[in-house]
Amino acid sequence: MVPTSATVLDLEADVVTLARQLVDIPSESHHEQVIADAVERELRARPHLDVVRHGHTIVARTHLGRAERVVIAGHLDTVPENANLPSRLEDGVLHGLGSCDMKGGDAVILRLAALVGSGALVPERDLTFVLYEAEEVDAASNGLFRLSVEHPELLAADFAILMEPSNAGVEAGCQGTLRVEVRTTGQRAHSARSWKGVNAIHGAAEILNRLAAYEARQPVVDGLRYHEGLNAVGIRGGVAGNVVPDECVVTVNHRFAPDRSEAEALAFVEEFFAGFEITLTDSAPGARPGLDRPAAQAFVAAVGAEPAPKYGWTDVARFTTLGVPAVNYGPGDPLLAHTQAEHVAVEEIERCERVLAAWLAGEGTSS
Amino acid sequence: MVPTSATVLDLEADVVTLARQLVDIPSESHHEQVIADAVERELRARPHLDVVRHGHTIVARTHLGRAERVVIAGHLDTVPENANLPSRLEDGVLHGLGSCDMKGGDAVILRLAALVGSGALVPERDLTFVLYEAEEVDAASNGLFRLSVEHPELLAADFAILMEPSNAGVEAGCQGTLRVEVRTTGQRAHSARSWKGVNAIHGAAEILNRLAAYEARQPVVDGLRYHEGLNAVGIRGGVAGNVVPDECVVTVNHRFAPDRSEAEALAFVEEFFAGFEITLTDSAPGARPGLDRPAAQAFVAAVGAEPAPKYGWTDVARFTTLGVPAVNYGPGDPLLAHTQAEHVAVEEIERCERVLAAWLAGEGTSS
Repeated sequence: MVPTSATVLDLEADVVTLARQLVDIPSESHHEQVIADAVERELRARPHLDVVRHGHTIVARTHLGRAERVVIAGHLDTVPENANLPSRLEDGVLHGLGSCDMKGGDAVILRLAALVGSGALVPERDLTFVLYEAEEVDAASNGLFRLSVEHPELLAADFAILMEPSNAGVEAGCQGTLRVEVRTTGQRAHSARSWKGVNAIHGAAEILNRLAAYEARQPVVDGLRYHEGLNAVGIRGGVAGNVVPDECVVTVNHRFAPDRSEAEALAFVEEFFAGFEITLTDSAPGARPGLDRPAAQAFVAAVGAEPAPKYGWTDVARFTTLGVPAVNYGPGDPLLAHTQAEHVAVEEIERCERVLAAWLAGEGTSS
Repeated sequence: MVPTSATVLDLEADVVTLARQLVDIPSESHHEQVIADAVERELRARPHLDVVRHGHTIVARTHLGRAERVVIAGHLDTVPENANLPSRLEDGVLHGLGSCDMKGGDAVILRLAALVGSGALVPERDLTFVLYEAEEVDAASNGLFRLSVEHPELLAADFAILMEPSNAGVEAGCQGTLRVEVRTTGQRAHSARSWKGVNAIHGAAEILNRLAAYEARQPVVDGLRYHEGLNAVGIRGGVAGNVVPDECVVTVNHRFAPDRSEAEALAFVEEFFAGFEITLTDSAPGARPGLDRPAAQAFVAAVGAEPAPKYGWTDVARFTTLGVPAVNYGPGDPLLAHTQAEHVAVEEIERCERVLAAWLAGEGTSS
């Protein structure tokens, strides 16, 4: 059991103190009960919020009758602990598991929810705050995915902000990803009489030649330049040390820009490996940046910096599937996510809170 | 425990009955005690044989004062049982585990030992019969290897016959074998930003290109044409489905003709893969056929068929290391070894016994 003292969550504290409190509640994927309980308790105490819980996913909505609605979402879970708890605050940097991915962002969401929930901040748009479970594991467990399938009405909005670490800049859309297995076959033989067989590993040379010669598309989508990729992420073959192998399998990961659908991306891969047997093993769509929408443009103006394309796949694609344009915007360097030394600059957490609060209040560009 | 009835070994029975008795004593590698006990007991009962036991390896020698000495050797162990015991004799074919590899040959050895040991057959050359343990497993356990290291004097001879299955023809010498790991390295990166890394699997394309273009040497050595081979027998690489991998390892098996030493074969492989990191993981020398020796020539004449080169590696190389020319000669098809359906034609067992007995007695060519 987590000690009671570790479940303190004070939404009236400053955003950095709140971020520390969140980090100090362990919440590895599939173990979000304690943190979700604390979040739910605090949000239910705010009179202007309508709170719904699904599993360990908490949704808190305003009903102010505004013309537009914005979702602000973050996941509550972390990867497994790696000798990086409890939190440590040092020289303006918050260290600890989940500090970057993404409890710094969660603290910003909870601070905004507290301000709006108590009526201290009156937003121009209705708001839906989502704090969800199981982002770091399989898609079927993902709280945002489950919500999008079982209760899509709770995610209905004109714009969504996902507080994935993005160095407090706007990273718009995301690239899609698919994986295929490309297979060669041959005929087994004893390696002492190898001319009686056909070596399937030698047959994979052409697969690797094509990959080595691949030139990435870098299409501009809604004003942002994406950068595709096609990489062998695994290769296996071999029966025994004295046997000519009859099978070789190359696992290839294709990252594709959001101007292509999953079907178009698969067609590209099939043509690229024409002549080889291909099996699709998983696929997820990209998300167009959607920066042409007024809410998105206003938000980008509020952040006051050029938006960048998001290369990696994130849950923003789940919003796109629902027809909601979405961007990644959160404190922390995405390259630090999942590392033992994960940390986040206090200044970035504070800046994200300030920018979002000003934008929600309709105060225009802040910095 | 193996039942007593299964340990009957009657060296006065015909060679096929004796082969069945040997098959019906289970003797998977490292479990040769029962069969070795039975062999030792029978050989010690023959007055003209000097019997020595080392572990489960039995050596029986004549001391007739002949000018030359011949070793006739066979291993007593088998691969693990695979629903192929007890033996079955049907339409002139003996079925069962070890029938081909190589208890048919062992039966021939024991019949000859019985004839010589009782004085019924007076050989022109002194004889050393070796029935040894643990051929099917690691080299360090191999009874012939251990004898060659610990008591090489027991293997001293002018010529050796190893009764490995060879379709009752002479297969002379053997090819050497070595394995190397050929490695490429790169730099890890998230596959969503793959241009920040270097893909080690893509880097292996050139290794496979060279292998696919390899042309085998087929040198003639002492009159026999060998056939080399260079094959990838394994390939591995990959960190995770979303990571550009930083290492790929291709395991390559080189089979080399006996005109090259291990060092020369390794030098060839190193030059072949110039530019790549190479690690030698194992190596065993080939064996020249040695058909220029008088004893070998007389034996080939006795068999009455053209000798063939042995492509696979066998324990004949251990004799070569001791300076003793050696050939493979035994009943059974080597392609059936280690298969569940392993079997041997009764006619081949009988022919091997007849040919060897006639040659040992100096009766010239038989068939």
